[in-house]
Amino acid sequence: MKQQMVIGIDIGGTNTVVGLVNKDGECTENISFSTKQGNSFEDYFTIFVKNISDLITKNKDVEIIGFGIGAPNANYYTGIVENAPNLNWHGTIKLKQIVEQAFKVPTYITNDANAAAIGEMLFGGAKNMKEFVVITLGTGLGSGFVTNGNVLYGYSGFAGELGHTTVVKDGRQCGCGRKGCLETYVSATGITRTMIELLENKTVESELRNYNINEITSKHIFDAAKNGDKLAIEAFEFTGEMLGLSLANMVAITSPEAIFLFGGLAQSGDFIFKPTIKSFNENLLTCFTGTVKILESGLKGNMTAVLGSAALCWNELNK
Amino acid sequence: MKQQMVIGIDIGGTNTVVGLVNKDGECTENISFSTKQGNSFEDYFTIFVKNISDLITKNKDVEIIGFGIGAPNANYYTGIVENAPNLNWHGTIKLKQIVEQAFKVPTYITNDANAAAIGEMLFGGAKNMKEFVVITLGTGLGSGFVTNGNVLYGYSGFAGELGHTTVVKDGRQCGCGRKGCLETYVSATGITRTMIELLENKTVESELRNYNINEITSKHIFDAAKNGDKLAIEAFEFTGEMLGLSLANMVAITSPEAIFLFGGLAQSGDFIFKPTIKSFNENLLTCFTGTVKILESGLKGNMTAVLGSAALCWNELNK
Repeated sequence: MKQQMVIGIDIGGTNTVVGLVNKDGECTENISFSTKQGNSFEDYFTIFVKNISDLITKNKDVEIIGFGIGAPNANYYTGIVENAPNLNWHGTIKLKQIVEQAFKVPTYITNDANAAAIGEMLFGGAKNMKEFVVITLGTGLGSGFVTNGNVLYGYSGFAGELGHTTVVKDGRQCGCGRKGCLETYVSATGITRTMIELLENKTVESELRNYNINEITSKHIFDAAKNGDKLAIEAFEFTGEMLGLSLANMVAITSPEAIFLFGGLAQSGDFIFKPTIKSFNENLLTCFTGTVKILESGLKGNMTAVLGSAALCWNELNK
Repeated sequence: MKQQMVIGIDIGGTNTVVGLVNKDGECTENISFSTKQGNSFEDYFTIFVKNISDLITKNKDVEIIGFGIGAPNANYYTGIVENAPNLNWHGTIKLKQIVEQAFKVPTYITNDANAAAIGEMLFGGAKNMKEFVVITLGTGLGSGFVTNGNVLYGYSGFAGELGHTTVVKDGRQCGCGRKGCLETYVSATGITRTMIELLENKTVESELRNYNINEITSKHIFDAAKNGDKLAIEAFEFTGEMLGLSLANMVAITSPEAIFLFGGLAQSGDFIFKPTIKSFNENLLTCFTGTVKILESGLKGNMTAVLGSAALCWNELNK
C-alpha cells in the first residue's frame, strides 16, 4: 500500500515552497521556485503545475491525498485569493478550485498565520491546547487564533488581523491605509523603521551608522544587538514594549492559554522576548495573571510554513 | 404535564432580578430583591433562597429544570464568583455548587455580558448568527463574544474583557488599576467623566452647568443632548469616536457578523450610534468593509438581563 501524504505549499512574496508531509508532520521532500513568474497568475500557475507534477511523479510510492496552501489574503471559506499584497496576481483568483481541477485532490487554503496556528496545533507546541494564538513576525505581522479547538476565521473569513489593530493613535502610516497599526512597529520592517528613527533622533554611537539608511534590515539590527549595540538593543526594547501592550489587550478579548511567536524576529531570543514579556505583564488585566504563556513556536527547522499548510490539509481530512 | 421552565437570575450591584422563563424566551413572572443584604454572601444567600423558594412554591404548575445566573466575575468553567466588584461578598464563592445544593437542579453561571450574548443568540437579534459580539454599556463596559456558534470563554474563563483594552496610552485611571481602558471612556461613568472634562475645559453654555459635578449622570447628558445641548452632544460624539475605533480594532481580531450594543447608553439612539458608526467606518480595515453590522440589541423590555441568564441555562440544557 502506498504511503498517504499531503502536499503543503507556502506561497510567499518571493518564493513558493512545496513539501511532502506525512501525518506525523515529517516533511520528506521539498522543492521551491520563484513566486515572481511572469506578470500574471496564469504565468505563475504554469510553473506551479509543472514543478508539483514533477515532484509527484518522482514519488511514485506516495499517494497524495490533499493539498494545503498558505497564501497572502487567502480566504478559507471562499477558496479565493483576492488582491494579494506583494503578488503580481490581479483581481480574484479562485485558487482552491483551480488547484483541485488541476490535481484532482481536495485542496484547502488559508493565510500563512492561520496555517502556522494549525501547524502549531498538530505538529508543534500547542498539541493539547484548545485556546491559543500564533503571531507571525515576518515582513508584516500576522496572527492565527484558535478558539474552542477551531481556527477563528470569523464571519468574513479574514479574522486574525492583529497586525492591523491600532497601537498608536495617528501613528506610523501603514500599507493598509490606516495609521499606527501594530505591524508598523512590530515586524521586520517595523523594527527597521524604529532603528532608523533612533539613528536620526539620538547621537549615541551605533555600528548601524555604517550602513545607508535603506540598507538596514532586521538581521543587521539583531547582529548589532548581539554585539551589545545600545541603539539596536533599544530598538528591540521599543518593539517588545509595543508587542507586549498589544498582546495584553488581545488577551483581554480572547484569553488564550499560550501565545506563540513565529518567524524571523521571533528567533531573536531574549532581545525580543524579554521586553515583550515585561510590557505584557505590566499591561495585563489582573484576572489573567498566570493564565497565559508567551512561547517560541514549537515548529522547528526551515520548513515551518510548509508544515503549517500541510497541517491545514491534515486537519480538514481528519474532520 | 407541568410546563418546563428555567429560572434566570441577574445579580447586579444593587438588585437581584429573578424571572421564570420558558423555552421561547417569555418571562412569565419576576421578582427582585436587594443584592446589598447584610455584610456577607451568607446573609445575601438566606434572602436569595427564601425569595426564590416562594416564587417556585407559588408556581406549582411549573417544573423548574434549571437555573441560569449572570453575576459579576462569575466563571462559567469553575462555577465560582471571585472578588466580585461592587458586591460585598468576600473571597471565593462557589455559587454554582451552593445553588445546586439548595435547589437540586442544574445551575450555570457566567458574567452578564456573556449571558446577554446567549440571550441575543436564543431570543434576540442573533438567532441565526455564529459570529457576533454583544457590548454591554452600563456602569462599566462588558463584552460577550460568540465564535463558531459558541460563547468564547477562553482558557481562563474570563475572555471578553474588551472594556479593559487600552484605547488611550497613559489615559484615564481605571478601577482595574490600568490606565486608558475603553471602559473609562465608553460607559455611563465614562461619558460622565467626558462631560465633566468638557464643562471644565470649555466655556460653551450647557444646561448641565446647573448641576453639581458629582450629581451629573449619563441620563442627564442624554436629556440635555435631546434638548440640543452642544456640550452634551459633543460628549456623545467623543464617546462614539472611542467606541468606533475600539470596535474596528476588535473586528480585525474576531471578524463578527454583527456587534450588538446593549444596556442604558445603547438606548441613546443616534446620539451614540451615529458617531460610533462614523468612527468605526473610518478605522475599519478595508477587507472587513460591508461585513459587519452595528445594531441595537434585539432583546426588548426590562427583563433583558434575566432573559440572558435564562438563555445560558436553556442553551446548556439543549446541548
